[in-house]
Amino acid sequence: MDRRSPLPMDLTVSTERFRERFDRFNEIGATERGGVNRPSLSEANRRARDRLVEWFEDAGLAVTVDEMGNIFGRREGHDDSLAPVLFGSHVDSQYNGGRYDGVIGVLGALEVVESLNDAGVETERPLEIVAWSNEEGVRFQPDMLGSGVFAGVFDLEEAYAVEDDDGETFGEELARIGYRGDAPCEPRDLHCYLELHVEQGPYLDEDDVGVGVVEGVYGFSWMKAAFEGSADHAGPTPMDLRHDALVATSDVVQAVRRLTATGGDDLVGTVGQVDVHPNSINVIPERVAFTVDVRSYDDAVVAAAVEQVEREIEWAAEREDVAWEFEEIMRINAEPFDETCIEAVERAAESVEGEYERIVSGAGHDANYLNRVCPTGMIFVPSVDGISHVEEEFTEWEDVVAGANVLLAAVGEMAAETGGEQR
Amino acid sequence: MDRRSPLPMDLTVSTERFRERFDRFNEIGATERGGVNRPSLSEANRRARDRLVEWFEDAGLAVTVDEMGNIFGRREGHDDSLAPVLFGSHVDSQYNGGRYDGVIGVLGALEVVESLNDAGVETERPLEIVAWSNEEGVRFQPDMLGSGVFAGVFDLEEAYAVEDDDGETFGEELARIGYRGDAPCEPRDLHCYLELHVEQGPYLDEDDVGVGVVEGVYGFSWMKAAFEGSADHAGPTPMDLRHDALVATSDVVQAVRRLTATGGDDLVGTVGQVDVHPNSINVIPERVAFTVDVRSYDDAVVAAAVEQVEREIEWAAEREDVAWEFEEIMRINAEPFDETCIEAVERAAESVEGEYERIVSGAGHDANYLNRVCPTGMIFVPSVDGISHVEEEFTEWEDVVAGANVLLAAVGEMAAETGGEQR
Repeated sequence: MDRRSPLPMDLTVSTERFRERFDRFNEIGATERGGVNRPSLSEANRRARDRLVEWFEDAGLAVTVDEMGNIFGRREGHDDSLAPVLFGSHVDSQYNGGRYDGVIGVLGALEVVESLNDAGVETERPLEIVAWSNEEGVRFQPDMLGSGVFAGVFDLEEAYAVEDDDGETFGEELARIGYRGDAPCEPRDLHCYLELHVEQGPYLDEDDVGVGVVEGVYGFSWMKAAFEGSADHAGPTPMDLRHDALVATSDVVQAVRRLTATGGDDLVGTVGQVDVHPNSINVIPERVAFTVDVRSYDDAVVAAAVEQVEREIEWAAEREDVAWEFEEIMRINAEPFDETCIEAVERAAESVEGEYERIVSGAGHDANYLNRVCPTGMIFVPSVDGISHVEEEFTEWEDVVAGANVLLAAVGEMAAETGGEQR
Repeated sequence: MDRRSPLPMDLTVSTERFRERFDRFNEIGATERGGVNRPSLSEANRRARDRLVEWFEDAGLAVTVDEMGNIFGRREGHDDSLAPVLFGSHVDSQYNGGRYDGVIGVLGALEVVESLNDAGVETERPLEIVAWSNEEGVRFQPDMLGSGVFAGVFDLEEAYAVEDDDGETFGEELARIGYRGDAPCEPRDLHCYLELHVEQGPYLDEDDVGVGVVEGVYGFSWMKAAFEGSADHAGPTPMDLRHDALVATSDVVQAVRRLTATGGDDLVGTVGQVDVHPNSINVIPERVAFTVDVRSYDDAVVAAAVEQVEREIEWAAEREDVAWEFEEIMRINAEPFDETCIEAVERAAESVEGEYERIVSGAGHDANYLNRVCPTGMIFVPSVDGISHVEEEFTEWEDVVAGANVLLAAVGEMAAETGGEQR
């Protein structure tokens, strides 16, 4: 296998062009506090897609939109019969989310193509850049829906039938904004997938390192639970006759926090959602429904944590003499990325930045699902103070550019490979 | 002061007539599960008021509706210049509440009048029976609004301006249902006030005693508090960088429970309302607003509990490094009833039932406010399993009848007093 990069040694992306495009792109759905509001299939999301398609075509790419609205732009290679190198991310946002999340991975991919165009470089393999549909999952759940269908994790018809809170379906809304394409959304022959993304955690920023070489993604479990006691009056009901669903819930919140101290080095646990009924100042909470999220890079740690959470719920219910419900609604194993891709990203980071850190992602990405159908790797750049999913999300521009240059170098290496497919 | 009751020794209310009226009355706003849905100023509440006025008039009472929609029915006494004995309760309900709460106090009062009518008894003092407006406070807050304005606790214009969740005002809605009357709603010369009510707690039922002689009502404090941390992603945010508003809140829920074990014999404490933001399965809770309700018959115990709750909030905030807010929104001192009234009720209970219990009320009642303008007493009958404010609320009919007979005897004694006013 030939590993020599075909790229000129000094080839880099254009800081200015990238910045100018980044700013113009983020005028779409801009919020007053400096973020963007472009949830999937919104009007702003449609305009963002239109802009992308225009820019992809301007860069000479052949644009394809598949059945899930995933947008691909293809650049021919020297040997167009070889499987392409795919790279990109997403451009849908959280409600009032940040400007960097997803966007730098798509515009960074476009910048890689533009740089190759400018330098007149022809890669051995064809390149494809991509913007995945509905990564955030704020209006339509689950998240990573476009890449999930592409990877065969979800069924196309089921994805079309997903409803938002108003009962509108993903399929109809996708057609309404004009992005229900014809290309089949299904696994196909890919040499590899690479994704540049903001870390969304604090490690790179804390360590003052500009680039993270992502080894893989945490596994996690999502649980739903509830306690049901008695909605008695907060005044005349003596303490020894109470069956307070909120007291039981607070036991579990404490237990989840305690568990993260002893359940495994990297175990994190969160009770994020709590709904109290009847939720009245002078009525003892009768029913509390809540969620638990636990994550680790070690699947055994997640499994043990889930068991312990269920035990804690049972114990809390017994202590307060309330009924309990527990259901694990999702379990995703840790997703270690492909060693070839990790090493290609590592070499690219070494050559571009000198300094880098190997890191594991606590958040899920489209790369999770792509890793199931082709060798996959990711590049992280720092999130200042680890903040993301809010308008204050920020990454230093020099870090964004460094990330794009690492992507360029890694794509260059992977696209030069003429050997057999990776798996 | 002449304390001899003018009533025939064997005078009792009519079990059958009372039951028949109770059943007919509770057809209004009846729910499928055996409760009633007659929140204040609803259409069902209007019909219930119409039925009452009709029955009051049928019993020969002179009906007056005051500016707050409180409905009075007056029966002349031998000496009509004397201050009247007032007795009654309320007929508004919780949303999908029970059939006994309030209703037995008003229909029981009517039954007392009917029994005196049947026996041809003329009392020395005039009698007045009453149905107070908006006792429950489910649509318009605060609760006990009608008796509160009557007692001068609230201002009439402020009460009129109170809005429901749709922005409709109490004053306009009261006029709309035709019960914004002309009689001034203000303190006037009353000999005493007596109220028959279900206990809403478990003590009488536990002790298998049919009648409670109420000594007074618990004091209480209502507090609102909030924690504000950071809404970071539940995956990539390590435990040591979290500022989780829900973990801090669960500390306080535990602290309130713990405090009731040591803060005073009769201290009860409840966190009833919790609102989590953004309330998402994979986001660390940024802001949690919650309420605390503490009650005791000892004002010093309530005061100490409030101080301790604030300290616990401060400690929890420090532990989790989150911002905190604390506000006490209401403090009501314990309300010991008038000894003359308590003793009159006690003698009545002794003569009717033989067995009774002296009891303190954990819940507030219209009697709280009346106690501020005239000597006041209350009679409790058991709530099976202490359950109230729900459709399952139940009291054995023989206990309801016993309560009405105690009311009859106590009214008879108080109405026979020809001495000076009590305070």
